[in-house]
Amino acid sequence: MTDTVTLSLADLTARVETIFRRAGMNAAQTRALTSVIVAGERDACKSHGIYRIEGALRTVKAGKVNPLAEPVLDAGEGTAIVRVDAKGGFANPAFELGLPVLAARARELGLAALVINDCTHFSALWPEVEAVTAQGLSAMVMCPSYATVAPTGGNKPLLGTNPFAFGWPRADAPPYVFDFATSVAARGEIELHRRAGKPLPEGWAIDADGNPTTDPEAALEGAMLPFGGHKGAAIGTMIELLAAIMIGDLTSPEVLDYLGTTTLAPFHGELILAFDPARFAAGRPGNPLARAEVLFEAIVGQGARLPSQRRFAARKISESQGVTLTAAEIAGLDRLTAQGLDAVA
Amino acid sequence: MTDTVTLSLADLTARVETIFRRAGMNAAQTRALTSVIVAGERDACKSHGIYRIEGALRTVKAGKVNPLAEPVLDAGEGTAIVRVDAKGGFANPAFELGLPVLAARARELGLAALVINDCTHFSALWPEVEAVTAQGLSAMVMCPSYATVAPTGGNKPLLGTNPFAFGWPRADAPPYVFDFATSVAARGEIELHRRAGKPLPEGWAIDADGNPTTDPEAALEGAMLPFGGHKGAAIGTMIELLAAIMIGDLTSPEVLDYLGTTTLAPFHGELILAFDPARFAAGRPGNPLARAEVLFEAIVGQGARLPSQRRFAARKISESQGVTLTAAEIAGLDRLTAQGLDAVA
Repeated sequence: MTDTVTLSLADLTARVETIFRRAGMNAAQTRALTSVIVAGERDACKSHGIYRIEGALRTVKAGKVNPLAEPVLDAGEGTAIVRVDAKGGFANPAFELGLPVLAARARELGLAALVINDCTHFSALWPEVEAVTAQGLSAMVMCPSYATVAPTGGNKPLLGTNPFAFGWPRADAPPYVFDFATSVAARGEIELHRRAGKPLPEGWAIDADGNPTTDPEAALEGAMLPFGGHKGAAIGTMIELLAAIMIGDLTSPEVLDYLGTTTLAPFHGELILAFDPARFAAGRPGNPLARAEVLFEAIVGQGARLPSQRRFAARKISESQGVTLTAAEIAGLDRLTAQGLDAVA
Repeated sequence: MTDTVTLSLADLTARVETIFRRAGMNAAQTRALTSVIVAGERDACKSHGIYRIEGALRTVKAGKVNPLAEPVLDAGEGTAIVRVDAKGGFANPAFELGLPVLAARARELGLAALVINDCTHFSALWPEVEAVTAQGLSAMVMCPSYATVAPTGGNKPLLGTNPFAFGWPRADAPPYVFDFATSVAARGEIELHRRAGKPLPEGWAIDADGNPTTDPEAALEGAMLPFGGHKGAAIGTMIELLAAIMIGDLTSPEVLDYLGTTTLAPFHGELILAFDPARFAAGRPGNPLARAEVLFEAIVGQGARLPSQRRFAARKISESQGVTLTAAEIAGLDRLTAQGLDAVA
């Protein structure tokens, strides 16, 4: 007897797709959402794996995401801005629809933006980053979140944990990819400390009066802090400006007002920039992809890690050996398959 | 008797221009360089004011910048990439040449990039950011530096202090602007601690063996650390990739190899992105500039500061009352005026 079950990625994909289809999601939403959830599980990034299925279903059940949405493309011919209206569905199928047009435009102009509007953003930004790098392009991606982070010197939640992500294509290796919250910690990490009855590390949060706290309860009633002090707060603010206000979508405080909770997936927009290194480097000495390898070797050569290295190592194993889930996780999938939206609050 | 002298901004401009012209710089280099130096002094940003004149002259004397360079524009018609070849001169006149074309292209396409190649970058990035915001556009600006910062987990200088800057236009106020090093501290701050015989704060630097140190001497022989741990290192790496390798210009280790010192102004490239909020927000609810004001009010309203607020306050005073220099500073200007390049090592 074993307490674990190993599934191939294809089998896991089929299981997750079944859950979403039975819960009433259309083919476009199901396929794209399943893809990022399986990618999370594949990369041993458990916080973005099957654990997220319930959150997606809760958001559908709450009526805060449209499970039948068909995203609509506005190619923005003659401009550097490609838009996809997600029509209130998840961001993922909207991104898939826009990606080929974004890539073509970036190759044509050297630089282009994909704006996704009216979407429920789900999971990490690295799936988008990796998809752009797979086109031989560099990517910068950002989106807001819910207001849970106080600006440095302030005392109230205002900014989101606003992730900032970037990727650079590599010929013979997985891409260079980073994707991080602009808060010190993710909100989920504070919740985990609360459940475990453990104090928070210093510098993660302030209480409702704006004083530093290591008490998770007080932190959840107060605010999280940006990473790197005023510099992280500035980047978080930049993301509100570019990836919410500039693209005509909700800011983090507006998202929280709209949802009234941080337990549903956030509704807002997303900004993806794509750069064509071949166009930017044209006429200049050196091949940019080859020169980047020199930089990466210098980083790794002094004992530092490239971001996402751990994820890519896990991926390699999962692709040949499948992913191993606990009996409890399998039971969870069974329950969600059988009960659909009735399984979630 | 007084130990200080107050000069109008026009008088200070004339004094600085005279120094650069007598040192053999042409009109384009002189005007642009003087403009950013006077701006630093005007904004009480002393580390980017007249203090920098000597460094500029040293770089000219060392033959590492061309004082007679006339930058050349490649408008990149039909693309989102505007280029200026600085021809080995300072970045500032190259930026001035490219700005109107960048702004027009950003308005036309929604998004455009200005690449400056083969320049000596001088002073801060905020002059460029502010000039873009004055066109009603948002700006993101970055450039490498010299290799003085170790990637997190590493132990050798590799990345530069790689500044990252951003701006957003405001109708009735100075723009929202940040501009910071992606290292914890600037190298000059470590030097100041060394001279004062004061230990460094924890977390600024490592020694040559990669161990944390608070000894400024050991730090100068070792490496500085990125701000915000691995997140700051990731952003510093992104800047090497986008603003050095992608644009076909020197990385921070290559800059250090080329100059052989960190006492001269660095020779590399610069990347300026310009976004047109009106184009990005077209067809969406709300005016982006008005919505941004709601965000800024929420930041200031909870007692936090907007970045650059102190600089803009100083500017307001300087514009009406001039700037006050010490007798020693005036003597320094007199000496540089009289001796030109002979005044510097």
